[in-house]
Amino acid sequence: MATHIPLPTSPTVGFAEAFPGSRKVLVDGDHVRVPMREITLSGGEPPLRVYDTSGPDGCDVREGFPPLRDGWIRARGGVVEAAEPRASQGARRSDVALPAARRPVLRATEGVTQLHYARQGMVTEEMEFVAVREGFAPEFVRDEVARGRAIIPANINHPELEPMAIGRNFLVKINANIGNSAVSSSIEEEVEKLRWATLWGADTVMDLSTGPNIHETREWIIRNSPVPIGTVPIYQALEQVDGRPEELTWEIYRDTLIEQAEQGVDYFTVHAGVLLRYIPMTARRLTGIVSRGGAIMAKWCLEHHEENFTYTHFNEICEIMKAYDVSFSLGDGLRPGSIADANDEAQFAELKTQGELNRIAWEHDIQVMNEGPGHVPLHLIKENMEHQLDWCNEAPFYTLGPLTTDVAPGYDHITSAIGAAVIGWYGTAMLCYVTPKEHLGLPNRDDVKVGVIAYKIAAHAADLAKGHPRAQAWDDALSKARFEFRWEDQFNLSLDPQTARAYHDETLPAEGAKVAHFCSMCGPKFCSMELTQQVRDYAAAKGVSEAEALRLGMQEKSAEFRQEREIYVRSTAGD
Amino acid sequence: MATHIPLPTSPTVGFAEAFPGSRKVLVDGDHVRVPMREITLSGGEPPLRVYDTSGPDGCDVREGFPPLRDGWIRARGGVVEAAEPRASQGARRSDVALPAARRPVLRATEGVTQLHYARQGMVTEEMEFVAVREGFAPEFVRDEVARGRAIIPANINHPELEPMAIGRNFLVKINANIGNSAVSSSIEEEVEKLRWATLWGADTVMDLSTGPNIHETREWIIRNSPVPIGTVPIYQALEQVDGRPEELTWEIYRDTLIEQAEQGVDYFTVHAGVLLRYIPMTARRLTGIVSRGGAIMAKWCLEHHEENFTYTHFNEICEIMKAYDVSFSLGDGLRPGSIADANDEAQFAELKTQGELNRIAWEHDIQVMNEGPGHVPLHLIKENMEHQLDWCNEAPFYTLGPLTTDVAPGYDHITSAIGAAVIGWYGTAMLCYVTPKEHLGLPNRDDVKVGVIAYKIAAHAADLAKGHPRAQAWDDALSKARFEFRWEDQFNLSLDPQTARAYHDETLPAEGAKVAHFCSMCGPKFCSMELTQQVRDYAAAKGVSEAEALRLGMQEKSAEFRQEREIYVRSTAGD
Repeated sequence: MATHIPLPTSPTVGFAEAFPGSRKVLVDGDHVRVPMREITLSGGEPPLRVYDTSGPDGCDVREGFPPLRDGWIRARGGVVEAAEPRASQGARRSDVALPAARRPVLRATEGVTQLHYARQGMVTEEMEFVAVREGFAPEFVRDEVARGRAIIPANINHPELEPMAIGRNFLVKINANIGNSAVSSSIEEEVEKLRWATLWGADTVMDLSTGPNIHETREWIIRNSPVPIGTVPIYQALEQVDGRPEELTWEIYRDTLIEQAEQGVDYFTVHAGVLLRYIPMTARRLTGIVSRGGAIMAKWCLEHHEENFTYTHFNEICEIMKAYDVSFSLGDGLRPGSIADANDEAQFAELKTQGELNRIAWEHDIQVMNEGPGHVPLHLIKENMEHQLDWCNEAPFYTLGPLTTDVAPGYDHITSAIGAAVIGWYGTAMLCYVTPKEHLGLPNRDDVKVGVIAYKIAAHAADLAKGHPRAQAWDDALSKARFEFRWEDQFNLSLDPQTARAYHDETLPAEGAKVAHFCSMCGPKFCSMELTQQVRDYAAAKGVSEAEALRLGMQEKSAEFRQEREIYVRSTAGD
Repeated sequence: MATHIPLPTSPTVGFAEAFPGSRKVLVDGDHVRVPMREITLSGGEPPLRVYDTSGPDGCDVREGFPPLRDGWIRARGGVVEAAEPRASQGARRSDVALPAARRPVLRATEGVTQLHYARQGMVTEEMEFVAVREGFAPEFVRDEVARGRAIIPANINHPELEPMAIGRNFLVKINANIGNSAVSSSIEEEVEKLRWATLWGADTVMDLSTGPNIHETREWIIRNSPVPIGTVPIYQALEQVDGRPEELTWEIYRDTLIEQAEQGVDYFTVHAGVLLRYIPMTARRLTGIVSRGGAIMAKWCLEHHEENFTYTHFNEICEIMKAYDVSFSLGDGLRPGSIADANDEAQFAELKTQGELNRIAWEHDIQVMNEGPGHVPLHLIKENMEHQLDWCNEAPFYTLGPLTTDVAPGYDHITSAIGAAVIGWYGTAMLCYVTPKEHLGLPNRDDVKVGVIAYKIAAHAADLAKGHPRAQAWDDALSKARFEFRWEDQFNLSLDPQTARAYHDETLPAEGAKVAHFCSMCGPKFCSMELTQQVRDYAAAKGVSEAEALRLGMQEKSAEFRQEREIYVRSTAGD
């Protein structure tokens, strides 16, 4: 079967084309080397180093990325190679046409999760990697993980991963969803979307495939992913019962978890908070249940008149996940799907249950974050963050947008970037992107890029507002380049250099315009930046003392003037 | 000269193409008929009426729009026809090739401003028009205008205008900037941009032309504008001294004001708050002065070592503006041009002076709003709104974005829509749009549309958060259509129906897909909306009492379960 699947090829635009003027550099920690993107600047400015998610350059997609973490994991011990994968039903590893990338499956025999190590006081290579990447002390990273306020999703079967942290004291992260459906798209497209999304800045990627070749698609994706991969295992389980939720069983679901954990999925969305008694709370909603996973679980519960099996088997799920260090992303199956349904009883009932489940996961040393909404108007966003911090004990919050209005299908990357920036500022650790195709269709390459850029903007706006120590240097470098008419630097410092350059060149294509002290917006005579420079030159020519004298002198002069004006006003008042 | 200017043509896409399923209706007040857009819905849903800025249909651009307000203005009296336009220097009315639209210039002989009438206790037709348009009592509109908390920019020489209000208790409005520069674009393009911007929802338009034919361009724009037109008169004054700020004089500026007031400009941006003593405060900024008007005034002040002439002549400016009911938009010439410069001494010094000037304008019965920033990170936005409310006595605030980060040239419609939504929620009355070309070049048609849609989103998100009584009905209608798979209704209710439909059809082009109970995002098996309907059907089949019984019964059952789980958890704790 696999032989009929078209093999993925490399993206047509790579690092060099996407980021002219940039190069990858490796920054040394004590035990790790961390890739950064370094943007070369002109005008005597020092280069700017920025966070880079694009992964190693020049790897053959058929080989996958090098297993960066393999040595770290094995050196720490506590793992064995599985004689054969435990997965039975639904696992079709033999279909996978990845000869070079096949590696033995690892399974833990003792505590190997990042949370376990952190609580033991051990700084792992993953923690040090994160520390170097974000500019914090390794001990700070360890402490944030130990208290459950940050997670480092890092399955021991995903050695290709470049470790990253999700937590509100770190840079705000963004997730890009990819994945085919029964209706559309191929493995090739999905792997290209993965590389494309990480090239532009996706910090994690969720593979939400629901169509055919679900296992093979995921294998290609994990082997080629420098970022954590998340999934919603219930989707694959449902495929195995031909899309009939009522036929789902704990055993099918369990085997799916094991299969995916052994492939290397880094976090699982589990909708264990969708309890039977919460379902009637959605009956009078405008848009009912809009989470796919939530709807599947709700239907199962109603049909069987039994409690959600992912809730009743939650401890067994933990036993599986801890054996691979898969992190929880506790799903919000009852999130609001419209402004009308925001912050209602069903949504908050589930959030409280998420908090209860967080505590169980932590008892197992499993890392956990909580998924959040959805569609929420601006004035109701803060309440979401406050309840989550309170009920979920500061575990990282991971929200979808939220969309701040329903009236703009086709532009939901914008309706949601607004909510995402605001909730990120309030403390959400990761923002799940929304593309322009949301509610309308599956995103293509362009949509993925636009979604990622919109969310990099939201995340960075939140970083600035939260005062991440490295955030503002980027803005300052770009604004200085703008003020000094270093056009090439301005383009290269943009989140999307190609687009910035193309827009400039639409009206002033000549190379000479790239050194001009004006642009087509105002033309040479009206350029405020140029005028400001003249003002500064004037001040410089007279000396700074003159500028101060001007200021002091003018305060006197102005005091006189104000007095005159008052007389003047009085004479015309009531006219 | 005018004979060489290409004549404007109608936009290629009109109301019918832009808004399929919509028609214009006229809603009767006691003395006015107000155009609304009515969206026809299927499924037995009542049609939805929404605010419409697109102006009368089917008018020949060479004739201009009908003079809706002419009778109102003349009936109220207090105006005379000017024997000849007072404007001398710079006025070239004879160049204007608008034979049918030439009307006598009106000039007031007594108080004719909306603020004057409001303070007299008179509800004008303009106020009633606004009241019907927004769903308020006319007396409420009058009261908001009288206390200076809202303005109705409406020059007596712009009878084509459909009156609208800018104030924080009304719908949040958006402004679109158009205008050519010396480098690019023609009259034809600018008039098309005007119609295009108002078609998609621009509430006011600023003509920022700085190139040749500045007078003619403005004439075409005003005669074809159903929305208030704003300008920055210093731009035209500067053209008359060949771009040399130091050669500007009060007399040149004064004559420009008169010329533009007689043409029908509804509000003037005047940078009277840029005082000489504030200029040195900008010397250590990262990006100095970024307002064109601010930079021009700063240069003039420094060269002459004199106070800003628009400040020293502020009362004379008022005398001119009150004679035509031109509103003030007091410029923020010292607004921050980068995150680094936000909320600094220079910016707030000018804002305080704006407040002082507001009081003078009010003494003259002149309507006034205040312009605001600019580039401001999320956590510093609120302070802007609070100071403006305090120092400027609740006059409407009119901000440019603000942009919440500097790192995304090419996407500044998004960086700024975030800040615009937030400051709109806090109380800003009008948001000046930013297009994707900001900082890079002049916007074309597509950029104007994207900028307008992004700002309609920001404004509507703010309206929802502020609880405007008519805001949420739109979201609810769209979400209901979405939930019920009324695809055509969902498209037609979007801010941009064409784009929503095109995105859907990219993956499911067949007409049959428009009635399908799924879409390409999830495919038929995974559709949460479809599953929710099954859940509801189940509940309906059992009766609502059954659903309640289920809920109550499950609370008992769940209590038992929780008890069991606690035992279970205890048995595995510490594992």
